[in-house]
Amino acid sequence: MGRPAQGPDEERAAFRAELLASGLLVHGGVDGLYQRSGAFERVVRGVEALASRAGHGRGGPQLFFPPIMAKDAFERTDYLRSFPDLAGAVEVFNGGDAEHAELLLALEQGRNWTDLLVPSEVALSSAACHPLYATLAGTLPAGGSHYEVQGYCFRHEPSIDPVRMQSFRQHEFVYVGEPESARSHRDAWLERGAELLESLGLDVRVEEANDPFFGRAGRMLAANQRATALKFEITAPVSSDVARTAIASANCHESHFGETFGIRTADGIAAHSACIGFGLERIALALVKRHGTDVERWPAEVREALRA
Amino acid sequence: MGRPAQGPDEERAAFRAELLASGLLVHGGVDGLYQRSGAFERVVRGVEALASRAGHGRGGPQLFFPPIMAKDAFERTDYLRSFPDLAGAVEVFNGGDAEHAELLLALEQGRNWTDLLVPSEVALSSAACHPLYATLAGTLPAGGSHYEVQGYCFRHEPSIDPVRMQSFRQHEFVYVGEPESARSHRDAWLERGAELLESLGLDVRVEEANDPFFGRAGRMLAANQRATALKFEITAPVSSDVARTAIASANCHESHFGETFGIRTADGIAAHSACIGFGLERIALALVKRHGTDVERWPAEVREALRA
Repeated sequence: MGRPAQGPDEERAAFRAELLASGLLVHGGVDGLYQRSGAFERVVRGVEALASRAGHGRGGPQLFFPPIMAKDAFERTDYLRSFPDLAGAVEVFNGGDAEHAELLLALEQGRNWTDLLVPSEVALSSAACHPLYATLAGTLPAGGSHYEVQGYCFRHEPSIDPVRMQSFRQHEFVYVGEPESARSHRDAWLERGAELLESLGLDVRVEEANDPFFGRAGRMLAANQRATALKFEITAPVSSDVARTAIASANCHESHFGETFGIRTADGIAAHSACIGFGLERIALALVKRHGTDVERWPAEVREALRA
Repeated sequence: MGRPAQGPDEERAAFRAELLASGLLVHGGVDGLYQRSGAFERVVRGVEALASRAGHGRGGPQLFFPPIMAKDAFERTDYLRSFPDLAGAVEVFNGGDAEHAELLLALEQGRNWTDLLVPSEVALSSAACHPLYATLAGTLPAGGSHYEVQGYCFRHEPSIDPVRMQSFRQHEFVYVGEPESARSHRDAWLERGAELLESLGLDVRVEEANDPFFGRAGRMLAANQRATALKFEITAPVSSDVARTAIASANCHESHFGETFGIRTADGIAAHSACIGFGLERIALALVKRHGTDVERWPAEVREALRA
C-alpha cells in the first residue's frame, strides 16, 4: 500500500510546505514571493557558476542587469503584445507637500494611494536578455556577438506553486548575428544545457514548447511558435512528479529584436537572435526536489559541481 | 600648474564618463540605471563576501530578498511618509482581450498605457531590511535576534551622478531586540565597517547624518534624527573629491519597526532595531575611484581581500 495518489495541485502545496518548513525559502507575504536562505542562495550561485563555466570561451562579455529596465526599451520588446498579464510597470510620486498630504490620507483611509502616482521612466525587467538589445543598435562585427547576461525578472502570476515565482533570476547565453548561427547557438546550448543539468542528477527532457501568449490572438502565436520550432524547454520534475516544469528554455527570436532595435549584421540585414535561459531558482528547486531539503547531504559529486 | 579646478557636478559627469568608457558599467538608457560588467559584479561580490566574513558568528541567518516586497509590508514601514519621492509602486494588467486591444492602441499612439493598469500586491523594495520585519511579528527569543540580509533597493532619483543609482544592492546586518543591544550593535558595526572599508585602501570617515526626509515636515524629522544621533554614515570620496559619498549607513530605528510590525522582546516591550547597510555598488565605485578602472591592476592586498 503506497501513499494515496496526489493531484499536481496537492503535490505543489506539499512541496511549498516542505520548502518553507525547511527554511530554504521564507514566505514573502504574497503568493509567488519568497525570501531566499543563505543555503538556497549558495545553490543558485553554484548553478550560475556551473553554467558560466560551461559557456567559457563562448559566452562573450558578462553583463548583470538590475531588476528594472528603461520603459522605452521595455515597450519596444513587444512584451505587452504577447504577455500583458505578466508585465509590471513602475509608478512614482512627483508631488509637493499638498499632494503628499493627500497620499498619506489615502493610505490612512485604506484607499488606493497609487492613483496619486505618475508613470516612471522604468519598468520591471521581463526577461534577462531584454535590456541587452537596446544597447546593440547599429552594426555588429562579422560573425555576430555573444553575451552572457543575468538579471531578476518579474512575472505577475501569483501562485502557490513554488516554481511560479513573481521575481526570479535567469542566466542567459545570447547570440545576435547571422540567422544560421542563431539557430546553431540555440541547438548547441540546448544539448550542452541538458548535459549540464543531467550531470547534477536531474531527470531532464528536451521538449518542444510554446510561450503562454495572451488571449485569443495568443493561441495563434503559440501554434505558430510550435509549427516553426522556435522554442524548446529543458524540463524536470520540480513541484510535481506528474507535471514537469521548464527549468531552462532555448529560443530563436528570428529577426524580432534585430528589426525592433535596429541591430544589423555586418552584411546589413536585420540581425537574428537566440538565447538559452537557465532559470536559476527553478534549477535550485529541481535539485531540492531530487536530493532533498538538506543541501549538506546532497551527493558529493553534486556538491562538488556546484562549488563556484 | 595642475588641471583646472572642477565643481562637484563636473567631477561626477567625468567619473561617469570614465566608468562607461572603461566598460565597467553600461548605460541603461535612463539616468541612474546601469548594467554591470562581469568585472564590476565580481568586485560587488568580493565586498559582499568580505562583509559577510566580518559578520561571521554574529550575523545570524542569511536572507536574500527579491527586488520586490509585499505592498502591505511596504506600506507599514512608513516609507511613504518619509520618502514618497523615492518610492516605486508596481502596476499590472488584469483585463481581457478587449482591454488588451485598448492597451496596445494606447501604446501605438504614444499615450500613457499605464493608466489602463491596476495596482498589484507588491512594491519595489525600499531598503534591504524592510522585507524582514513583517516576518518577525511575535515574541523574540531572549537577547533578540541577528540577521544578515541583502537585496536590490529602488530609489527614484534619476541623476547623472553614478553613485545615485535607481536600483542597487544593500548588504545589511540587522539586530532586533533590546534597546541597549540595538545601540551597541549599531556602534560596534560602525567601527567594524569603517575598519573593513579602510582595509581596502579607502579614505573613510564616520559622520553623523540624517536621511533626506521629504518636504516641510521632513526638515523637522531630519533635525530630530540628528539631535538624537540615530544615523551615522561611513563616507568616502567616490564621484567627487570635494563632496564625499555615504558608502555605508548605520542606523537606530528605536521601536519604529517593533511597534508597527508587532515585534516584542522576551520582556514584552516593542522591540528596538538597528542595522548597518553596506552599499555594495557605492563601495565598488569608491574602490574604482581609489584604485582605477582596471581591476586587474589594483593592489595585491585589495584583490586578495576581495576574493570570495
